[in-house]
Amino acid sequence: MQLDRIEHIGIAVKSLEEAIPFYENVLGLTCYRVEEVEDQMVKTAFFKVGETKIELLESTSDDGPIAKHIEKRGEGIHHLAFHVQGINKSLAEAEEKGVRLIDKQSRKGAEGLDIGFLHPKSTQGVLMEFCEDNQNQ
Amino acid sequence: MQLDRIEHIGIAVKSLEEAIPFYENVLGLTCYRVEEVEDQMVKTAFFKVGETKIELLESTSDDGPIAKHIEKRGEGIHHLAFHVQGINKSLAEAEEKGVRLIDKQSRKGAEGLDIGFLHPKSTQGVLMEFCEDNQNQ
Repeated sequence: MQLDRIEHIGIAVKSLEEAIPFYENVLGLTCYRVEEVEDQMVKTAFFKVGETKIELLESTSDDGPIAKHIEKRGEGIHHLAFHVQGINKSLAEAEEKGVRLIDKQSRKGAEGLDIGFLHPKSTQGVLMEFCEDNQNQ
Repeated sequence: MQLDRIEHIGIAVKSLEEAIPFYENVLGLTCYRVEEVEDQMVKTAFFKVGETKIELLESTSDDGPIAKHIEKRGEGIHHLAFHVQGINKSLAEAEEKGVRLIDKQSRKGAEGLDIGFLHPKSTQGVLMEFCEDNQNQ
């Protein structure tokens, strides 16, 4: 398996409207995109930091995974996403090595990336995502 | 303030001995350094991913901040560290803009970096660290 870089860090926030000004006015970053991902019940805001991105996640539903995460653990870092070469091969390799997967096959995520999640029970409590950008291939 | 890149992501684990093989054998990363940081009561293990690092943190004391974090929230992502230009200027700027600081002045952290933490109450629940590598200046 080849992890090229940290593609993004997902951060659960109660309100993009409150969080975006912190990232822009205090940290000096620029929000370059806001996108709703309906099947994950989130509205996302993206910021570039070097080769990595920060993805702020606000729930669009009280039943969504981000709303549940905030209810249980409060706001904070939600997941860690790696860019990989060959996402389905990488998911299969992780499963062969005993990792429990949330997604056995990749699906479409924000920014058109192919994405798949590993279960935090298999990764010392860190919700990990693999991503691959196959849009120009 | 200028954030150059994500310097590292700190992950609280119960045992480096159990976690390192996951990062090496499943994710294919290489642990290039293990270091004890006495004043933070942690033993750390480092892995490079692109321009960023993953820093696994195991507590060396039941009273240490990582032991307390795991007791309260379980294993998982602990903090997010940005490399900045001018760490003390950046900490002062954050404070001027209303951010509560854990460290008003930088101190020495792992790998010889100058580091300072922002309080998660001011950053939507994310424990943020600023780092600067001033060793060759």
